[in-house]
Amino acid sequence: MSKGLPKRSDDYSLWYNELVKRADLAENAPVRGCMIIKPYGYSIWEKMQAVLDKKFKDTGHSNAYFPLFIPKSYLSKEAAHVDGFAKECAVVTHYRLKNDPSGKGIIVDPDAKLEEELIVRPTSETVIWNTFKTWVQSYRDLPLLINQWANVVRWEMRTRLFLRTTEFLWQEGHTAHETKQEAIAETEQMIQVYADFAQNYMALPVHTGIKSANERFAGAEETYCIEALMQDGKALQAGTSHFLGQNFAKAFDVKFAKKEGGLEYVWGTSWGVSTRLMGALIMAHSDDEGLVLPPLLAPIQVVIVPIFKTSEQLDLIEEKLKPIIAALKAKDINVKFDHTDKFSPGYKFAEYELKGVPVRIAIGARDIENNTVELARRDTKEKTTVPQEGLVDRIENLLKEIQDSIFQKALAFRSANTLIADDYSTFKKMLDETPGFILAHWDGTSETEEKIKEETKATIRCIPLGMKPESGICMVTGKPSTQRVLFARAY
Amino acid sequence: MSKGLPKRSDDYSLWYNELVKRADLAENAPVRGCMIIKPYGYSIWEKMQAVLDKKFKDTGHSNAYFPLFIPKSYLSKEAAHVDGFAKECAVVTHYRLKNDPSGKGIIVDPDAKLEEELIVRPTSETVIWNTFKTWVQSYRDLPLLINQWANVVRWEMRTRLFLRTTEFLWQEGHTAHETKQEAIAETEQMIQVYADFAQNYMALPVHTGIKSANERFAGAEETYCIEALMQDGKALQAGTSHFLGQNFAKAFDVKFAKKEGGLEYVWGTSWGVSTRLMGALIMAHSDDEGLVLPPLLAPIQVVIVPIFKTSEQLDLIEEKLKPIIAALKAKDINVKFDHTDKFSPGYKFAEYELKGVPVRIAIGARDIENNTVELARRDTKEKTTVPQEGLVDRIENLLKEIQDSIFQKALAFRSANTLIADDYSTFKKMLDETPGFILAHWDGTSETEEKIKEETKATIRCIPLGMKPESGICMVTGKPSTQRVLFARAY
Repeated sequence: MSKGLPKRSDDYSLWYNELVKRADLAENAPVRGCMIIKPYGYSIWEKMQAVLDKKFKDTGHSNAYFPLFIPKSYLSKEAAHVDGFAKECAVVTHYRLKNDPSGKGIIVDPDAKLEEELIVRPTSETVIWNTFKTWVQSYRDLPLLINQWANVVRWEMRTRLFLRTTEFLWQEGHTAHETKQEAIAETEQMIQVYADFAQNYMALPVHTGIKSANERFAGAEETYCIEALMQDGKALQAGTSHFLGQNFAKAFDVKFAKKEGGLEYVWGTSWGVSTRLMGALIMAHSDDEGLVLPPLLAPIQVVIVPIFKTSEQLDLIEEKLKPIIAALKAKDINVKFDHTDKFSPGYKFAEYELKGVPVRIAIGARDIENNTVELARRDTKEKTTVPQEGLVDRIENLLKEIQDSIFQKALAFRSANTLIADDYSTFKKMLDETPGFILAHWDGTSETEEKIKEETKATIRCIPLGMKPESGICMVTGKPSTQRVLFARAY
Repeated sequence: MSKGLPKRSDDYSLWYNELVKRADLAENAPVRGCMIIKPYGYSIWEKMQAVLDKKFKDTGHSNAYFPLFIPKSYLSKEAAHVDGFAKECAVVTHYRLKNDPSGKGIIVDPDAKLEEELIVRPTSETVIWNTFKTWVQSYRDLPLLINQWANVVRWEMRTRLFLRTTEFLWQEGHTAHETKQEAIAETEQMIQVYADFAQNYMALPVHTGIKSANERFAGAEETYCIEALMQDGKALQAGTSHFLGQNFAKAFDVKFAKKEGGLEYVWGTSWGVSTRLMGALIMAHSDDEGLVLPPLLAPIQVVIVPIFKTSEQLDLIEEKLKPIIAALKAKDINVKFDHTDKFSPGYKFAEYELKGVPVRIAIGARDIENNTVELARRDTKEKTTVPQEGLVDRIENLLKEIQDSIFQKALAFRSANTLIADDYSTFKKMLDETPGFILAHWDGTSETEEKIKEETKATIRCIPLGMKPESGICMVTGKPSTQRVLFARAY
C-alpha cells in the first residue's frame, strides 16, 4: 500500500495532482500539456457523455462530425475570433516525413510543405459556419441544431490535468436560427441544460450568469456561463453558451430566404462543456482519503468485499450474495464483487475509498451467521451493520441519499463561502483570508474590471441571472451600480 | 424533387458518391481529403459504435484516451512501423500564428517553432506502448485490455468519402499479455467480434483470414482481416486485428515480472475498424433508388406517412395511429411519424427510399375506413395492404425478415461472384469479365504476389481461415501450394 495522499489543508494543488494520478483518472502524456485519460477516469467521462448526449437529443439536437483541420484563412474571417485563438494554435505545415539523408532517423520532408497551413481546431465555429452556408437556403432549413463530440487543441502555456490541457475532449453545439429571439432562447436553454447536469448529476451547485465583455467568447455577443466553487475557495467555469448574433453568419455569408420574402443573415449560438468537468467533479467533493463520486456518475456504485480465509468460506459468502447481486443488477445498480485474493480486505477498502465508490459492503463469517453485512458510505465514512433482508432497497435508497447529501454539502460550503463586500479594502481582505465568491457592486466598465483583476487576481465570474436588482455604488470607483456581480479568483 | 441517382450499371463510382451526398451521409470538407459526416450519416455511425462498444466491454476491454500528437522520435522506435506510416503524416511544426507585419492577415509565427515536431496520430501504437511501459510491472498488471475511440490522420493521395479519407474516425484496441498464446487468442477473438458485427448487424457476409506478408500491418507479426465483396465485384477490407508479437514491447521496453520469477517482454495486439464500415454498408446493399439499410443499424426503422387533405383527416389518422406508435416505441422500434405538410406524400416516399428506411407505412382516408394500412419494405420494394390489427407484431417480424433477407441477398451475390481459377489466363479473364473473389493457388512468395498485383491490380485479400487444405500448384509459377487463397481487386 502506497502512503496516503497529501492533505488538502497542506497543499491543495499537490493533493489534486496526486489524487488524479493515484485514483487512476489521468496522467501526463509525453507531449507537453497533453493528458492520457486512464480507463477509470474515462469511464466517468463516458457516464457524463451519456447523460449530456441524451439531454442534447431530447432538446432536438443531432450529432455530426466536422474536420480536425481548419484552413488558416478561415480563422481570420471573424475578426474577434482570430484575435482570441491565433495565439494558441497548433499549426500543421507539412504532410510527410522522410529518412534523414545523413542517416540520423527521420526528418520532415521539406518538399511536402502545404500551400496553406492548417490549424488544429481550437473550436469549430469557422469550419461549421462555412458548412452552414451550403446547408441553409430557406427558413425551411432552420433551425439547424448540431452537436459534435470532439478533441480540440489550444496551446496553453500552463497546463493541469483535466483543468487546462493542450488537447482536451469536449462537445460543441452549433445552431442557426431564423430570429434573434429564437437564438437567445437556445443560448439560455443550453446553459440551463448544463446547470441541470451540474446540479443533478455532478451534485455541483452552480451560479448561472452572463460574462462581462472582457470575459466573453471571441466572436460572441453574449456569453452565458455556469460557475462553481471549489474547496480551496477558487471558482471554476464549468460550461458556457454563446449567443453569436449574426457575427459568424456575416463572416461566412449564411443567409436564408424568409417566409415572407427577402434574404436575411441567420442568428447563431454555440455552447460547450469539456473534460474540465472532470476536474470540477474531483475538486468539489473529494477528501484526504481520495475521490468522492456522486452515485449517478460512479462507474462502480457498490463494491462488495468478502472477508474470508478459506475457499469454503468464500463459497458460502458467494452463495448468500448471489441473489442480492442479481437484484442490484436488475435495478441497474452497478455492483462489483471483488473476491480476488491478490490483496487483503484492508488494502481493498483503501483502494475503493481512493476511487470514490459510493457504497461498500463487507461480509465475513460472523455476518453469514447473523445474516448481516457491514455497509459503509464513502461520503460520510459511516459504517453500520445491517440485516441482509431488505438490503437491496436499502442500498437503492442509500445511493439517492448520498447523491443528495453530496450536493447539500457542496451547497452549504458555497453558502458559507459566498460573502458580500461593500468596499474595496474589505473585498481584498476577504480574497486573502476567506477565499470564495464575493458579491460586490461594480460600475460596469472594462477599465474597473481590469484594475481589480490586476490588483487582486480576482475576476468577475458572472453577472448572475435571477438575482434581484439592487442599486449601490461601485466598490472601486464609487459610480452607480444596479446589481451586485460575482467575483472570485478562478481556475 | 431533384432528379434520380446515377445508375449503378452506368457508373458505380458516381452512383456511390452521389448517394453519399444525397442521402445526407457525408460531404467533402474544405480541407483536402477530409469529410464532414452529416447528422443522418453520423446517426448510423453512432449505432455501429454502440453495438461495437458493448461487444468490446463484454469481452473485458475498457475505453481510455491517448493524445492526438505523437513526438516524431516515437514513430522511429519500431522500424517497420515508421516505414509504414512516415510517408503519410500530418506534421505540426509551430504553435502560434501572428498578424502579418505587412498587414495581410495572419501568418505562422516563426518564433513559435517546436523543438521536436509532432505527428498527428496515424494510429496510436507508439504512444500507447510508451505508456504501457509504466502501467506494466508484473504479471498482476496483465492482461491490459484497452480500446480508444478517436480520430486519426493519414495523408492519403486519393481519397473518397468514407472509404479513404485523410482524417477518419475509428476505434483502436491495444492489448498486452503474459503469453504468446494469450495474445494470439485475443487477436483471433477480436477478428471474430468484427465478423459477427459485420454479418449480424451490417448484414454483410465476410471472409475471415490472414494477410500475406506484403499486406501485413507495419509492425505486426500476423494480421487477421475480414473481407467483404461490394456490388461492383471489388473487395473491401472491413476490419483488421494484429498480433504484434513482442515487437512493440521491445521497441518501448515493456517487460513484466513473471509469476515464476524473471522478467519478460509482454505480447501485444492491436485491432481496429473505422468509418470505412460506412462505405461498406452503403456499397454492399444499396440500389439505384438509394440507400438500403439493415434494420438493426437504421436510425429510422419505420416511417409513417399520412395521406390527407384536411386537418380533420390528419387528426383522424393520428387518433388511429397513436396506440400503434406507442406500441412500436415500447418495443424499442424507432418510428417516425412524418405529418408535415411541407412536402407531398410522393416526395416523402422518394426521400425515405433514398435514405433507406426499412419499412414505410402509408395511411389514407380509405385505410381509415377499412382499418388497414399500406406496408412497403425498402429492400424488395414490395407493397401490401394489411389490417391495422396485429400491425405491431407484423412490423416486428418484418424487420427481422428484412435484416435476414438483406444478408441472404448479399451472401448469394458473393457466392455467385466467388470463382475458382486454376490457371493465370483464366484468372485474368475473370477479373475483367466477371469481377469478384477468385480462389486460386499461390506459391506463398512475395515476388509472385507482387507480379500478380502489377499485372492485374488484384491482390491477395486473405488466406482464408477454416478452409480445407487442398494441394495444388501456383497458377503463376507452377510451384506447389497447400491452400487456395482469396484474390480480388480491392478498394
